[in-house]
Amino acid sequence: MIRVSVVGAKGRMGSHVVAAVEGAADMQLALALDAGDDLTAISPQNTDVVVEFTVPSVALGNVLTLVKQGVNVVVGTTGWTEDKLNQVSAALTEAGNPDQSVFIAPNFAISAVLADHFARVAAPYFESAEVVELHHPNKVDAPSGTAIHTAQGIAEARAAAGLGPVPDATETDGGSRGQVIDGVHVHAVRLRGLNAHEEVLFGNAGEQLTIRADSFDRISFMPGVLLAVRNVDGAGHPGLTVGLDKFLDL
Amino acid sequence: MIRVSVVGAKGRMGSHVVAAVEGAADMQLALALDAGDDLTAISPQNTDVVVEFTVPSVALGNVLTLVKQGVNVVVGTTGWTEDKLNQVSAALTEAGNPDQSVFIAPNFAISAVLADHFARVAAPYFESAEVVELHHPNKVDAPSGTAIHTAQGIAEARAAAGLGPVPDATETDGGSRGQVIDGVHVHAVRLRGLNAHEEVLFGNAGEQLTIRADSFDRISFMPGVLLAVRNVDGAGHPGLTVGLDKFLDL
Amino acid sequence: MIRVSVVGAKGRMGSHVVAAVEGAADMQLALALDAGDDLTAISPQNTDVVVEFTVPSVALGNVLTLVKQGVNVVVGTTGWTEDKLNQVSAALTEAGNPDQSVFIAPNFAISAVLADHFARVAAPYFESAEVVELHHPNKVDAPSGTAIHTAQGIAEARAAAGLGPVPDATETDGGSRGQVIDGVHVHAVRLRGLNAHEEVLFGNAGEQLTIRADSFDRISFMPGVLLAVRNVDGAGHPGLTVGLDKFLDL
Amino acid sequence: MIRVSVVGAKGRMGSHVVAAVEGAADMQLALALDAGDDLTAISPQNTDVVVEFTVPSVALGNVLTLVKQGVNVVVGTTGWTEDKLNQVSAALTEAGNPDQSVFIAPNFAISAVLADHFARVAAPYFESAEVVELHHPNKVDAPSGTAIHTAQGIAEARAAAGLGPVPDATETDGGSRGQVIDGVHVHAVRLRGLNAHEEVLFGNAGEQLTIRADSFDRISFMPGVLLAVRNVDGAGHPGLTVGLDKFLDL
Repeated sequence: MIRVSVVGAKGRMGSHVVAAVEGAADMQLALALDAGDDLTAISPQNTDVVVEFTVPSVALGNVLTLVKQGVNVVVGTTGWTEDKLNQVSAALTEAGNPDQSVFIAPNFAISAVLADHFARVAAPYFESAEVVELHHPNKVDAPSGTAIHTAQGIAEARAAAGLGPVPDATETDGGSRGQVIDGVHVHAVRLRGLNAHEEVLFGNAGEQLTIRADSFDRISFMPGVLLAVRNVDGAGHPGLTVGLDKFLDL
Repeated sequence: MIRVSVVGAKGRMGSHVVAAVEGAADMQLALALDAGDDLTAISPQNTDVVVEFTVPSVALGNVLTLVKQGVNVVVGTTGWTEDKLNQVSAALTEAGNPDQSVFIAPNFAISAVLADHFARVAAPYFESAEVVELHHPNKVDAPSGTAIHTAQGIAEARAAAGLGPVPDATETDGGSRGQVIDGVHVHAVRLRGLNAHEEVLFGNAGEQLTIRADSFDRISFMPGVLLAVRNVDGAGHPGLTVGLDKFLDL
Repeated sequence: MIRVSVVGAKGRMGSHVVAAVEGAADMQLALALDAGDDLTAISPQNTDVVVEFTVPSVALGNVLTLVKQGVNVVVGTTGWTEDKLNQVSAALTEAGNPDQSVFIAPNFAISAVLADHFARVAAPYFESAEVVELHHPNKVDAPSGTAIHTAQGIAEARAAAGLGPVPDATETDGGSRGQVIDGVHVHAVRLRGLNAHEEVLFGNAGEQLTIRADSFDRISFMPGVLLAVRNVDGAGHPGLTVGLDKFLDL
Repeated sequence: MIRVSVVGAKGRMGSHVVAAVEGAADMQLALALDAGDDLTAISPQNTDVVVEFTVPSVALGNVLTLVKQGVNVVVGTTGWTEDKLNQVSAALTEAGNPDQSVFIAPNFAISAVLADHFARVAAPYFESAEVVELHHPNKVDAPSGTAIHTAQGIAEARAAAGLGPVPDATETDGGSRGQVIDGVHVHAVRLRGLNAHEEVLFGNAGEQLTIRADSFDRISFMPGVLLAVRNVDGAGHPGLTVGLDKFLDL
């Protein structure tokens, strides 16, 4: 039985995590904390894994405190820079417990993580590749961080395979060809009714491969969160691990 | 039996038209002319309808000559400006034959014409609308003329229905949101293996409507060409008619 | 200001209707009744339009009572047979008020209603047509009533246009070609994560037209319900009207 | 420079192979043979690799002869049974040349091979999975062999991961739920204008993953054929190899 505490338990994601943990046969909810609660109430005496879903401004502090408390941490909060990640790694080293680990996921949706991975695997075999992401119209940034990551992965895989630029004879364009990220065109659609979706298109003469991930609801992140809780341990994945793909059998 | 002559008979489209006419049970091929041939060989004595598929630089001259020859003309060549269309209308008026008519289609693909029409009909009922067009990477312009036309139709229908701007909270965008045509975002994908495709996306809270037209091959234009040949007559459609939608039962 | 009462106000759909009416600038909520409440509290003194969303076993009785009470009724409950519809029509005739009307919609999702309509309009122009519907795995019937209706509409339109059977050389099939409804193949997919979706595929040599309606959430029915409330009046649509398409500008 | 001979050089596929070999910078065409030609003209003196694209009734005989001739063989002809494959393996063993190998591909379309592979990788992570294949209406069997293979792969991966049956509450079905292959529902669409397409749908609560392979034209097989020619060698892949996935970096 994995004892799981949740930090940010009253938030939009955190409340789903509390319910998911309570519904999982191999887990039990330990502490459910939110803003203002004392994180040092969490310790190896009551908790095996903490799930942290708060806001970028407090997440680093929370994680550093939890590492000192000696528990494993699964982090769903976004906004991690190179510098912040280094501070987490350093804290783990200082803690000196080889069985302790921290896991940070930019995206817990398994479909999105698989799509991103498959895009990288497929990229070397196609002359053309483009990314279309589609989201609800309240999203303030475009394109999505997931789409940027996917485009970068495709670009790296193409470069490693010795592929040149994608074919594109466009001479006249008023902006319809999208944003070019490392040579890969990325398009962002905003549509009421949608949530978070990504489509990766690959083409050769006479053929197309399409990989699409749809997240209709944030409940779609829960299988990924539970998977992370089951895998965040120093034995299998020591230190800091970033990306749910590390916990999938790919 | 409709007697059909083809001008531009050796071209990429014209050669398909010759074959399509020969394969149609209600038509027979009269003259098949190409660059250098004398258009005045075509007359009501041998031809009911001429199909003109050449290049923009000669199409106007061809049509004016054919109108003088007294035959009906179906035109597939592109590049028609307001001024050129006026010259054709004037020539028809001067010819003075109420039974004679000219038909010009920017697009003969029935799926594309229907998609364009359906987009205009659906537009008043949705909060969001965007257009994605996808073509082979040798196309030099982006977005396609068809996509621009579709976006304009959606914008007109939204305005007529009293709808305001589409919802879009995007604050940060490096170009991924596409080209905005009359308030409608249009995205252009270029992918080896594709030919000509258009997808129109509509969204309301909780629902999406998608209309997609795929033209895999220029043979897809032939049903539209034959439909035009059967309908280009002064009785039903006097003077100059533009757009295959005029010949569909919509 | 349209005064709207809701019958079945505590139900899954009815509670959304109450919220939608309260959120509409041109409506005000009159009475919100549920099982056990007395429908005769509803009268022209307090209500212009009643929205009835209950269960098939009580809907006919509710509608007959409400017609006697002299109010217009919008019905979202399903399960209407020819006989039941006739009883409603007879009740309206007996009431003898030319300004009173009843509206019944098998489907309030505007995207689904438009897709169904577009399928019928497009059908005469394509050699092939098939329907794929996709729903959550808890649905007990397959294919959906909406898909059956769409297939029937396609079949009628094909027949009216003089089209023969769809081309199909299949000799060996263990069941993968789906259910054939009036000559149109219909396929039903059941997938966790989906709600209610329909895709209509049309094909000619070299081209495809796809029309797809996605309902992600029952909130997608609210624009259709409000549209019906605004249009259910004896002046514009006397007597009994069935189908949201009658209230759209198609 | 790889010296390539083609057997079945005048066939629909073979003629494309001849052109593809002539267009490849690292290959040169050796012999182009067709029905009636003597296969023993092919030998290591003139040929490194033979591409065999004929018909099932002669393919086994051709391959056995070519193995005796001492050359590597890439086979695109279909219709291979367990027994036939065993005869090829036995012939290779008898030939006794460790550098000689035979490669047989049920499908040379890279997009289809990748889709099939990705489906197997993704299968353990989703509650629901279904397969939809779409082909031209002249195809005589349904579902396609590729779709059957994909469904079997999904079923094996689900079983290995300990997943139970897919959720499906369907009680009433007139055939719309498709053919069930090892517990996976497979649907076959036949549409004029299409060629060969496969869509694999995975679902969890709140999310969907879709993998789609489109083959618009048989030219789409050529990159896969050239890839096989470059990889069919006894050093890297001794003996008999079946399936293009063995030559991809997956």
